[in-house]
Formats: sequence, structure tokens, C-alpha cells
Amino acid sequence: MVYPKTFQGFAITDLSKWTETELIEYEPKVFDDYDVDIKIDACGICGSDVHTASSGWNTPALPLVVGHEVVGKVVAVGPKVTEFKVGDRVGCGAQVWACLKKTCPACSTDNEVYCPHWVDTYNCTYPPESGKSAGGKAMGGYASHIRVHEYFTFHIPESLKNEDVAPMLCAGITTYSPLVRNGAGPGVKVGCVSIGGLGHFAIMWAKALGAEVYVFSRGEKKREDAFKLGADHYIATGEKGWNEPIKMKLDFIVSSANSSEGFDLGSYLSCLKVGGKFISVGLPEKPFNVGPGSFIANASSLSSSHLGSRPEMKEMLKLAAEKGIKAWNEPIAISAAGVKEGLEKCHHNNVKYRVVLNEFDKAFD
Amino acid sequence: MVYPKTFQGFAITDLSKWTETELIEYEPKVFDDYDVDIKIDACGICGSDVHTASSGWNTPALPLVVGHEVVGKVVAVGPKVTEFKVGDRVGCGAQVWACLKKTCPACSTDNEVYCPHWVDTYNCTYPPESGKSAGGKAMGGYASHIRVHEYFTFHIPESLKNEDVAPMLCAGITTYSPLVRNGAGPGVKVGCVSIGGLGHFAIMWAKALGAEVYVFSRGEKKREDAFKLGADHYIATGEKGWNEPIKMKLDFIVSSANSSEGFDLGSYLSCLKVGGKFISVGLPEKPFNVGPGSFIANASSLSSSHLGSRPEMKEMLKLAAEKGIKAWNEPIAISAAGVKEGLEKCHHNNVKYRVVLNEFDKAFD
Repeated sequence: MVYPKTFQGFAITDLSKWTETELIEYEPKVFDDYDVDIKIDACGICGSDVHTASSGWNTPALPLVVGHEVVGKVVAVGPKVTEFKVGDRVGCGAQVWACLKKTCPACSTDNEVYCPHWVDTYNCTYPPESGKSAGGKAMGGYASHIRVHEYFTFHIPESLKNEDVAPMLCAGITTYSPLVRNGAGPGVKVGCVSIGGLGHFAIMWAKALGAEVYVFSRGEKKREDAFKLGADHYIATGEKGWNEPIKMKLDFIVSSANSSEGFDLGSYLSCLKVGGKFISVGLPEKPFNVGPGSFIANASSLSSSHLGSRPEMKEMLKLAAEKGIKAWNEPIAISAAGVKEGLEKCHHNNVKYRVVLNEFDKAFD
Repeated sequence: MVYPKTFQGFAITDLSKWTETELIEYEPKVFDDYDVDIKIDACGICGSDVHTASSGWNTPALPLVVGHEVVGKVVAVGPKVTEFKVGDRVGCGAQVWACLKKTCPACSTDNEVYCPHWVDTYNCTYPPESGKSAGGKAMGGYASHIRVHEYFTFHIPESLKNEDVAPMLCAGITTYSPLVRNGAGPGVKVGCVSIGGLGHFAIMWAKALGAEVYVFSRGEKKREDAFKLGADHYIATGEKGWNEPIKMKLDFIVSSANSSEGFDLGSYLSCLKVGGKFISVGLPEKPFNVGPGSFIANASSLSSSHLGSRPEMKEMLKLAAEKGIKAWNEPIAISAAGVKEGLEKCHHNNVKYRVVLNEFDKAFD
């Protein structure tokens, strides 16, 4: 098996100019028995790329190649890989490794995304538990190739175009998992807060799963899009008292809101039935200020959710193929200028609803 | 039916001296068709009494008679009361009214405690929805009598002494409800944070329900009590890293901690299995500072819970009678001095684990 010795990628090398990447060459982490090397054809630009590159969550290690919504073709597989062969069209998302041990409380229950030893697709170092990969640095998908454990590699249904499916690998699964884990389906009233990269998927999935979908957005600007995506109801949250007509009506809420400033969490909680959950899949950089008093009126709760499991990813891709669901996306050819444009569009919420980098063939040798 | 025209009670009349009550006479709210008048024999001193009297949650209306862990005898019943008759030994807790309508999303689902129109036992005014009671002021149990809707009145099992059972009507049900709603039982690992008025019940109920009980307390002082109450494991949370051995092990946690200052919520969340809930039944006066990032490692959630439903209250009293469960209590004869002593003991956490006011006969005409 011949696998590439070095990868190329558009890397952030100066945090003070986090949209200005440089094309670098780097050695990927060691090629392990279960690894798959993917030659990349498309990569979505995720809000996480912006949070990480702009040091919004913490200070990342440099050089940093971000990107975790990857679609491409398999060019090499490790000797123990069973599900993939060279030439397969595959994707990978925001996780590239977990311990996958039968003794792991997370991995043993289809919760590998919550494995204490998990490895992010970028800005992450392989832990001691990863054996010979330990110390290897995970680098993302604004690159020629990516190296991923086969468990975190997924076949892409033939009917789905690269650009339409890439954003599902992170934004898609991030919203799909909490929807199915909380029972979205016929007879269930689901709230979807914020329409963007994550949020537009939440609406499409909730509708496809058969739920009654309540979409929340600050103003009126996105009303039409909301209904196109599958909303049954649209609530503009600009006016005080917007929650009054739907108090205690929703089974749960999936929120993709990306900022906690001025976020009226209490009013959202009031829309939940007794015991209902507010699941924030957006990761605002600043915390909410909440006491138990915020939840006591209906025993509601505040939670979060991270990506999804392998079975959920497979179900989601199948659902997308069956229902013809596509990411709303704006493709930009990958290059330093393209990455800059894409990161800035994402940063300023100036995209409907995902930039997808493509034309990788032209950028890399 | 002859019912008392006026009640007597030990009232806070000056918020700057909130432990110094005055014996006052007052007219209770109008006697309604479903009302039960109870001549009081015992009343627990709840943390809520202290939070309310000391203006910790907000500024209460004066005069204020607190107390919502009431046991006594029925002295009058309204014409539509069916379950109680004069002479019955009964109790009432922290709620005296709710709309109880079939159209109410809360009342129609055994969640009357989350009814938007609910009436607290004290420091609360009956709402327009309560018909002829509207505008009436609810006054608590440091008093000769209390007037309660029959739905919030409960028969007390004969085997339970007044002082042993009174604290169950608020502290007891507050911990019992989230335990049963979250499935406490054999094979389930339950965390109980803080040992006090609420917390000591959480341990006793969790054990009685068959769960494996993990008790958390800051130091070593309460270790022995924890095991007497039914703990299977005791974790002193003073040392950094206390959570390491039990990460991802617990199904859920019921916390009675009363303060959010220095409270290490993140470490508690780390002890939960994927999707586990941290339910704060304590109501700290200051909020927690939490972002979705606090929950993302295991999709845990932060929630609260309020009292419990009528069916839960009945089940709990039955369980207490069957298993011989008693509040750990220190009785104090009711009087201005007794109330002062009791409130101060509770305020300074200087009681194991509940003061119960008794000897009401001697204090009132």
C-alpha cells in the first residue's frame, strides 16, 4: 500500500491574521493499521473553524489547518481496514479517533463522540491511548489529504454531490443526533433556534423526521427561508412577549445560536413542556448566566450535544439520500484567497448557509 | 360547617429583623368550596422560609407568615370536599392551589406543581383564575391554622409522628419527585449532593427505592451520617480531582446545595453518564455561570425540579410508612423565641437536619 508521505494544506501561521493562510507541507501522524487516507475534493467551512482560528475558544497550536467537513476519495487503507478500499468516495467529520474499547463507558454505548480520549479532526494531539499514533498532530481538511481511523470514515451515497453533503459531516450530524436522541418524529413539537450552517440542517432534519417544526429567528429576514427549509411555524423573537403564545408547548428545542449575549434563554425555556430540554449545539464563546430558578417553572433543562455516533451518521446520510436533502451552500475554489473569503463570510454570517471549498485538484500538486 | 374567622400566626413584620416574629391575628383568604381548614400541630422550618424571610430571593410582602411543612387536624371542609372530614390528620406542603383544569398543560398531566397559576403556601396572592379566592393572601404554617385546597391536602399515615413527617411535605417531596421521575431504582447509580434538610431525604429515598447511592459532601464531617442515611459511597469534594474515580459513572445527580459560590458544577457534570442530568433542587440565590461547553463532554444537562405531584406525594408517604423513614429532626416549641431559634439554626446550617416547630396548642388560643 502506497500512502502519501506528506500532505499539503492551507495553514494559519499567525493568529493575529487568522484569515490569511499559507500553503504548507507537513507530515501527517503515523499511518496506523485502521487508518484511511483520503484525497480531499470538498470541505465545508464550519463555525468551529472560525472559533478556533480566531482563538475564540482558546489559543490553538500553530501551524493550524482547520476544516472538518471533508469529502474525497480513499487513496490508501491500513492493513486492518475492512470497510473501505482505494477509490471509494467517503467523508469524515469533526472526529478522527476514539479508544473504541469495550470497557469505555462512551465507546461501548455508541457514544464514541464522548470518549474521554477522543481526537478532534484538527487542533488536537493523539493521546497515549492511541498507541503508535500518540503525539501525532491532527490536521484538518483545508488540505490535499486527511488521515482518519476507519470508524470515523463514512461512505457517501452516490446521489449526493460533494458540496451538498460535505457540511452534513459536522453541521448536519451535530443537529441530527440531538433530534433523534430526543425523539423528533410525528406528534412531536420541536423548536429550532437560529438559521445558519447548523440551524438550517436542524429544520430540514426535524421536518424529514416528521416533527412539527417551530423556527425561531431574531427578525423577519429569514422567514421565507425557514418555510422553504420545512418550518411549520416561524417566530420572530425581536418583540418582547414573543414566547407568550407558545408557553409550555414544545417537547424540546435545538439551538444553534452562536452567541450568548442578549440571548433570552429564560423565554425559550418557558416554551418547553414540563421536563423539556433546551439543547444548545451552538457553542457561544461566553457562558450563560443561569440558576436553578431558570428551570424551576417547568423542570426544563439546559444541555448540549456533540456531533453524533457512527450509526447516527449512517442513518443521516441515508435519510438525506432518500429525501433529497442538500446543504444550502456557496462553493468557493480552495486557495489562500478562497479560504480567506470563506472564513470571513462565515465569521460575518454572510452566507446561505455554508461555504464549501472545492476544486481541490487545482490547488494541490 | 363552622370555620375559624381569623387565624393567628408568628409573622415577620420588619425585614431588617427577619428572625424576630410577632404574634398577629389575620383573616385568611375566603373559604372556598374545595377548601380544607387545618388546625396545625407541627411545621418544619424549611430553607425556603429563610430565603424568603431574609429577602434572599426577592422582597416579600409583609406581614409574612412562613412555613410550608404543615401537619395538623382538619377543622372545617368546604361543601365540595370529598376526601377529608373534620378530625382527619393531614398535611400540606409548599403549594395550596393550582387551576387543575383539563386544558392546563401542567395540571392535565400530573404536573400541577408547574401550573402557571399556582399558589405558593406563603408570600403569594391568589390569581384571578382562582375565582372568589382571587386577591386572597396565602399565609404559611407558623400559625394556628392554614386554609388549603383539598387537592394539596394529604392524609398522613398513622405510623408517622408529626415531627417525623412534617418535613416530608416540602423537603421530602422536593427530593422524591426528581428521583422517581428520573428512574431511581435497582441498577441505577444516583448522586446526592449535600446533606441537609433536603439532602438527607434524597439519600433516604434513593436507598429506599433501591438505587446505588453516591453521596457528595465538602468534607469528612458528615461521612458517618451519610452511611446511616443509606449511602453506598461517600465522596468528600474538598480535594481537587475527587471526580476522577467516578467520571461518567452516575445516571443522574440530585443536588441540594444551597449556594453556587465556589460550586464546582463542571466536576459534578463529569461524573454523569452520557445524557445524564444534574438536577438542582437547592435554589442558590446567585446563578451558576455555565455555557454549553460545560455539557458537551457527555451531553449532560442542568435542570431543576419543583416539589412533586399529588400522586408522588401519596406514594412517598406510603413508602415512608412502609420503610419506617423519618425526618431527622430537632423539635422546638413554637413561640417568637422558638421561631427565632429555629430560623437561625436553619440559616447557619446548625441542625440535623430539620427543625420542626411543635406544641402549637400552647402558643395559640
